[in-house]
Amino acid sequence: MKKSLLFLLLSAGICWSQAPDTSQPATTNVPGAKYPRINSDLSVQFSVKAPDAQKVQVQVGTLKAIDMVKGSDGVWTITTPPLVPGFHYYYLTIDGVSVDDPASHTFYGVGKDSTGIEVPEKGVDFYYPKDVPHGEVREHWYYSSVTGSWRRVFVYTPPNYDKAAGLRYPVLYLQHGGGEDETGWIRQGHANFILDNLIAAGKAKPMMIVMASGNARYPDEADRPAGPPPAGQSGQPRGMPMLSKAFEDDMIKVIIPMIDSTYRTIPDREHRAMAGLSMGGMQTFMVTTAHLNEFSYIGGFSGAGGGFGGAGFDVKTAANGVYADAAAFNKKIHLLWLGVGTEEQERMRSSVLNFRDALVNNGIKVQFYESPGTAHEWQTWRRDLNLFAPLLFRYQPASASKPKAAK
Amino acid sequence: MKKSLLFLLLSAGICWSQAPDTSQPATTNVPGAKYPRINSDLSVQFSVKAPDAQKVQVQVGTLKAIDMVKGSDGVWTITTPPLVPGFHYYYLTIDGVSVDDPASHTFYGVGKDSTGIEVPEKGVDFYYPKDVPHGEVREHWYYSSVTGSWRRVFVYTPPNYDKAAGLRYPVLYLQHGGGEDETGWIRQGHANFILDNLIAAGKAKPMMIVMASGNARYPDEADRPAGPPPAGQSGQPRGMPMLSKAFEDDMIKVIIPMIDSTYRTIPDREHRAMAGLSMGGMQTFMVTTAHLNEFSYIGGFSGAGGGFGGAGFDVKTAANGVYADAAAFNKKIHLLWLGVGTEEQERMRSSVLNFRDALVNNGIKVQFYESPGTAHEWQTWRRDLNLFAPLLFRYQPASASKPKAAK
Repeated sequence: MKKSLLFLLLSAGICWSQAPDTSQPATTNVPGAKYPRINSDLSVQFSVKAPDAQKVQVQVGTLKAIDMVKGSDGVWTITTPPLVPGFHYYYLTIDGVSVDDPASHTFYGVGKDSTGIEVPEKGVDFYYPKDVPHGEVREHWYYSSVTGSWRRVFVYTPPNYDKAAGLRYPVLYLQHGGGEDETGWIRQGHANFILDNLIAAGKAKPMMIVMASGNARYPDEADRPAGPPPAGQSGQPRGMPMLSKAFEDDMIKVIIPMIDSTYRTIPDREHRAMAGLSMGGMQTFMVTTAHLNEFSYIGGFSGAGGGFGGAGFDVKTAANGVYADAAAFNKKIHLLWLGVGTEEQERMRSSVLNFRDALVNNGIKVQFYESPGTAHEWQTWRRDLNLFAPLLFRYQPASASKPKAAK
Repeated sequence: MKKSLLFLLLSAGICWSQAPDTSQPATTNVPGAKYPRINSDLSVQFSVKAPDAQKVQVQVGTLKAIDMVKGSDGVWTITTPPLVPGFHYYYLTIDGVSVDDPASHTFYGVGKDSTGIEVPEKGVDFYYPKDVPHGEVREHWYYSSVTGSWRRVFVYTPPNYDKAAGLRYPVLYLQHGGGEDETGWIRQGHANFILDNLIAAGKAKPMMIVMASGNARYPDEADRPAGPPPAGQSGQPRGMPMLSKAFEDDMIKVIIPMIDSTYRTIPDREHRAMAGLSMGGMQTFMVTTAHLNEFSYIGGFSGAGGGFGGAGFDVKTAANGVYADAAAFNKKIHLLWLGVGTEEQERMRSSVLNFRDALVNNGIKVQFYESPGTAHEWQTWRRDLNLFAPLLFRYQPASASKPKAAK
């Protein structure tokens, strides 16, 4: 009996001297790719066949590049330290050239199509598809008279939008970060699944989300450099060289009128929100503070509105003085959300915290969120959206809820 | 005067001994990437910085890999021979590892995210966005009880779909090729722009297009190998190892009922077409011939229905005998389209031509199209779609057009 069990185990290739390999291919792998594999402690095994290469490295998210080790079969492998849960861009460096890993899907980030890896967070599934009604994500092309080019927005319509012909919906305009584009919030962020799940649970009001490209410029404007701003660049605000007023014009003059005339929106400021991450947060504050009559909810996810760095921000004069009169601002803006990850770089953290403090000290209401354990990455912004969206479009004017006094 | 003009020209770096460089970055480049560049003769300049690499090659479409040449600055460059117009997958090989070019966007093909390059065809713009009304492409998630997984279809709805609330539309089910997925017909094929342009010109009836993933398997079915079938594999039909009846079940039992209950379709066989390219052509014939009561228009784009290779195809017994009675078949199927490129491999050409001949010799009506100068690539299939779509949903039963005889 014992002998036949041993035989069976050996035949099946099972070896009881090692713990069972519970690693799984990442969900971001291309079909059939066995690597990268996520171990149960969230360390990750990478593997690439490169018999003729002299040096191969892998660089994941905010970590430094790690040397991979060549096996006798010409396959280079490495197991990373445990990674922070969430989505990370990553690259292989083969003899000095940074390239995508052929084994993973790519996502537009850092100014190019970049391989990404999804590291699951234990017990957390708010951004995965579940057995709930699903909205649609619509690719919608439009000609922008501002940029003089055909451009694309993605529009999330909530579950049942088509059938509920009598209903109109509020809209969240939601922007990607620097070096990313209008695909980011769906492909990296899973904004559609986040909203599907929130709406199904009754936690968020059914709403539309419009995701435009923040990479806009006027026809005669020089190309902006791809990717994040150069390291060490200063000035107020630091992100400005990437930004162009063309985006504000495209949003206000082209996108919003197009969305309101194409979809069953509630086309007023009380039912219009804007939020964005990093560069998109900067752009959100640029657009909303210049057009307070168009928006009543504002979100900055790891992207402050007072200029990066905070120094020189004057709450009385910034953004043409919209923050100066806190009572007036609080009356108009029903939610001002600022978020940042605990593991973000000090410069980013201080810019958000300084901006928050300047607003709060002036009497402006701020909803602040600190994402535990995460850096300047998508897991921070998924959490922002998951907590921000339920707060949207809840405002009821006092007159609507209070019984009228008898005459 | 002459002297100052010379000075001016020299200062500006202009040299009149060379023709002006009219090359342009490819439209498939990531923003800001100056290479690859398309020359006016459709030769292409590739460039990659790899100072530490020993050998760098570029492999474009159906061409053999070409050695690139290292400059003193560590930048490897090469200009290819003139390329065939259209969309080509391409790769860099850096010290023996085939990788994506960081300078180009990626497209899912050959079982992975692969860089692609768009080579323009002079005077041809039927697949570009124009100043016409645009339909939408909707990303629609569904749970497939056949595969036991969440899956995605893309649904093209024609211009004005939302506003024309009383109208219902015919549907073309359109499938990608082996190693590709449901993103192919939009991203590589530009099917949305092709239909936008045809509809605007009055050449095609407004219709929906549904693009599903042909990569389906039952929950207990082993993973199929990624990419095209192994070279040299024979048997009838050659493509079978990639195919699974799971796709047919998913299409018939899940996708079509879901589409008909979600969108304003005309849910009958007279208003339902199916077409596909390569593997998707095989699948189209698998599905439609097994369900002739569900479809009345069939298209095979470089994908024959009689088994690849043609040998052993018996028109009397193939597909459970649906072709045996030509009159009955011609009555049911209003269009059977077969296309192939003149530059495709002999094995592919002969399989399509043999299938065509067997059908025609048996009396079945076939609309045949040969794409001039193109191989087993997307330009062939864009042309197929551009010519196939206008023929769809034109059938009028004789009784509908003939005045009734007086009694």
